[in-house]
Amino acid sequence: MIILGIDPGTRVTGYGIVEKTPGGILHLEHGEIRPSRGSVLSESLRMVFETLLEIVDRRKPDVLVIETIFYGKNVKSLIRQGHLRGAAMLTAPLRGLPVYEYSPLEVKQAVVGYGRAEKRQIQHMVKALLNLPSPPPADASDALAMAICHAHTMKKETA
Amino acid sequence: MIILGIDPGTRVTGYGIVEKTPGGILHLEHGEIRPSRGSVLSESLRMVFETLLEIVDRRKPDVLVIETIFYGKNVKSLIRQGHLRGAAMLTAPLRGLPVYEYSPLEVKQAVVGYGRAEKRQIQHMVKALLNLPSPPPADASDALAMAICHAHTMKKETA
Repeated sequence: MIILGIDPGTRVTGYGIVEKTPGGILHLEHGEIRPSRGSVLSESLRMVFETLLEIVDRRKPDVLVIETIFYGKNVKSLIRQGHLRGAAMLTAPLRGLPVYEYSPLEVKQAVVGYGRAEKRQIQHMVKALLNLPSPPPADASDALAMAICHAHTMKKETA
Repeated sequence: MIILGIDPGTRVTGYGIVEKTPGGILHLEHGEIRPSRGSVLSESLRMVFETLLEIVDRRKPDVLVIETIFYGKNVKSLIRQGHLRGAAMLTAPLRGLPVYEYSPLEVKQAVVGYGRAEKRQIQHMVKALLNLPSPPPADASDALAMAICHAHTMKKETA
């Protein structure tokens, strides 16, 4: 099973793809999508959407896994994140993939074993679990952590 | 110039298309997109996106006009609206269209001449301005009102 994890933020959208095999979890790819700072919102939406759709078409994941929105931000930033998350999430039904959501707490518990783990601990564990030569950047690590979390827990309800 | 107005809500997305000609503003089409109540969010995003993309490809508008988000709601509802608005707005850059935003106040002032006009007044004015046999439903009227507002005011900044 191939799992695409996505971490859509207001500035950077991280993604990570793993394959769950009988022998363990294999790393396939990760990266970060960074629309330029001066982009209007519609252009940022297009860049996130088109990049992810290209990845979906190339890697053919079985599921898309995405982080629930964390409410502890200002409303304007939450709404912007909602737009970008909507454009990212949209790629799944367009290609017939189910969507699963995990909270940051669930992801941290699944990957680090501790719900209040910090970014660096996640990066460190993602590197170790996937046998990577170096820790991926923070947003790509979060996306890989989400994919690993799904490989471990396999939720039932779709979003 | 063909103008597509969109009013994306948490439950219903209204749309309306008008053509600005030297002789006045012509009504081309309007409607409402209503994902079924039980749909998961990703399916609602797909339905709004695919319906609007079909309309864009069929009517070939020159611009997309969309309402700014009104902040006077609970955060959960604003975030849901952000997702749907993102999926709707995305259709524009995918087809090379500029996006313009107007606030409810600007739209009401342009169409009714009064910033605190009620839904029914907007429906009534949209019917009158476009010579329609009956007032369109509320969300489609809002979308048509936005398109009319752009035809009158022609903003410069894109979103």
